[in-house]
Amino acid sequence: MLERSYGELKPPERLLLGAGPSNIDPRVLRVLSLPIVGHLDPYFIEVMDETVELLRYAFKTSNHITFPISGTGSAGMESAICNVVERGDEVIVCINGFFGERMREMVERCGGKSIEVRAPWGEIIKKEAVEEALANSNAKAVAIVHAETSTGILQPLKEISKIVHEYDALLIVDAVTSLGGCELTVDDWGIDLCYSASQKCLNCPPGLAPITVSERAMNVIRNRRTKVQSWYLDLSTIEKYWVENNRIYHHTAPILLVYALREGLRLLYKEGLENRWIRHKENIQALISGLEEMELTIFTDKNYICPAIAAIKIPNGIDDGSVRRRLREEYNITISGGLGKLKGKVWRIGLMGINSNKKNVILVLEALKSALKREGYNPK
Amino acid sequence: MLERSYGELKPPERLLLGAGPSNIDPRVLRVLSLPIVGHLDPYFIEVMDETVELLRYAFKTSNHITFPISGTGSAGMESAICNVVERGDEVIVCINGFFGERMREMVERCGGKSIEVRAPWGEIIKKEAVEEALANSNAKAVAIVHAETSTGILQPLKEISKIVHEYDALLIVDAVTSLGGCELTVDDWGIDLCYSASQKCLNCPPGLAPITVSERAMNVIRNRRTKVQSWYLDLSTIEKYWVENNRIYHHTAPILLVYALREGLRLLYKEGLENRWIRHKENIQALISGLEEMELTIFTDKNYICPAIAAIKIPNGIDDGSVRRRLREEYNITISGGLGKLKGKVWRIGLMGINSNKKNVILVLEALKSALKREGYNPK
Repeated sequence: MLERSYGELKPPERLLLGAGPSNIDPRVLRVLSLPIVGHLDPYFIEVMDETVELLRYAFKTSNHITFPISGTGSAGMESAICNVVERGDEVIVCINGFFGERMREMVERCGGKSIEVRAPWGEIIKKEAVEEALANSNAKAVAIVHAETSTGILQPLKEISKIVHEYDALLIVDAVTSLGGCELTVDDWGIDLCYSASQKCLNCPPGLAPITVSERAMNVIRNRRTKVQSWYLDLSTIEKYWVENNRIYHHTAPILLVYALREGLRLLYKEGLENRWIRHKENIQALISGLEEMELTIFTDKNYICPAIAAIKIPNGIDDGSVRRRLREEYNITISGGLGKLKGKVWRIGLMGINSNKKNVILVLEALKSALKREGYNPK
Repeated sequence: MLERSYGELKPPERLLLGAGPSNIDPRVLRVLSLPIVGHLDPYFIEVMDETVELLRYAFKTSNHITFPISGTGSAGMESAICNVVERGDEVIVCINGFFGERMREMVERCGGKSIEVRAPWGEIIKKEAVEEALANSNAKAVAIVHAETSTGILQPLKEISKIVHEYDALLIVDAVTSLGGCELTVDDWGIDLCYSASQKCLNCPPGLAPITVSERAMNVIRNRRTKVQSWYLDLSTIEKYWVENNRIYHHTAPILLVYALREGLRLLYKEGLENRWIRHKENIQALISGLEEMELTIFTDKNYICPAIAAIKIPNGIDDGSVRRRLREEYNITISGGLGKLKGKVWRIGLMGINSNKKNVILVLEALKSALKREGYNPK
């Protein structure tokens, strides 16, 4: 069947200013060419231990269960949900974007009954709505997205968390886009299950989903009536490999990706989490000012802009694909289009981790201005 | 909490002659430092298409559904099983080692009823036993391991496949350790679902699980009464991202790992699949001869030795851990101990992909001889 030749890979050097992945930190790229050791090698166990420590720093938690799931962010989401939800359980799912919908889908695939709390895409979920849903249900958990990558909104969590625990439910938080870029403190805010991804503000390759789980949530999980439906994502067995003294083989960890994650987290630790949060906030504000000078409209409620990603409306009459193609082909810059019902309606510009810097703000603004002009966009 | 410093990673240079991971091919390591592009970038779509073509070559199949699952080999196993099995379905699970047990566990977590066909560890599953189980059940599928990594046995599949299809069931095959090293022809042998892993005979980093699915199996999957319980591993939705013209975002592919897999497969293609099979066979035979000269006993039925891994009995009075520690610390060579009920009873030596060569055969034999001697082993 195959009588052809396959050349060597020569990928273009893109500046990745979309919804993720972000560019890999060059220092992270470097560790990816180090020799691998076995998944039970004493050296790797040390790397695992340091990765766990550094993840606790990044999540601001002292949770014992804190490690990366061996899959992408969506595997983290599925792990959080399928460990908590049993058949017939009621779960409140907050939906104000694409990833809230995904959570609902997963709750239902676990046999759970999802109770939807909806807000328009681009707006936050109001705590009163969550409280009402809690009062009118027997919910075991509330699932909510911290930084909705599809709309660029940053959801306040602290007060919602208080309410959730008044009703004795668990709080599940999607921090895929926020970890390492936006203010997030798992313990202070009382988040019970929080998962993220390696390829956004941590500037690592995609393929790992850091997760952290409170003791309260682990108690619920340990007292389940039935086994977790996924063997691969079962936290209580992965725990025995990742964070217990007598390491019991579960699956072969993606060793090189763990090297990378440990390096990405080390760089985060060196910079300091709070410094990162400030840097992301400043640069997104500069980006938004620039976009507004071009008379572009921010899609999201401006009081809750996510410091790692901004969504803007595509101006009337301008072709989504043509503009993004120009950016990609003429400038080697990637930005993202809209997801789900926002397809063709918004662009999303991400400034994540090392990509959140002044140079990139200027670059993407000037490139976008030029591309828009040549597509016939003429603001006043 | 953290007031410490984290140094740069300096992993030792191990020769990985255990049950996997194997060493990464240096040419694969090279592509891991290439710049990443987005998961929907036209360049990445080309890389995906070539990866799919090359995987079809490696599996010897023309199956449309052929792509890597974004997780390790066990995620491939779970994907194969959870896409086929619905609550109440009967599945025959062949168990003659650790990974057969894992399949049973997964069938049950999908709500399936597993019908066990057992053989002693180190022996093959007999086709008569499978036929009897099929005759006495209403099994939807038969799950079996091709190369049992825990025992080093290679299971003949062709005749079992014929029987499975006479009973109109699906054949699910674990080829984690065999793909790219041991004879395996998915289409000719009539395998319906076959999954593997990137880190064994393909010499890529762990983190991807290639899978291929026949049209017959996809018909069964498309006609399920219920949704696949895992969203992350649902083949019908991953299909829309990996192998259809209009790419629909499912999750962010582990882009760098896909670069690596494509490179590992390109090297396989250049060498030629059949040449690989011969090379693996020759080197495992040389290894086994050398082990027998040392009066060590092969654990496995010698008529069915897996060309990628050999299991030997640990001689009486010899300490498992001490010998492996010597090999690791003095020679930087990793071999594996036993899994599950073989812990402390066998060692497993793997010769996978580039690691299957004469130099390594000599090295591991001499190192093992020396370590054993100093642990007090004195064969006649």
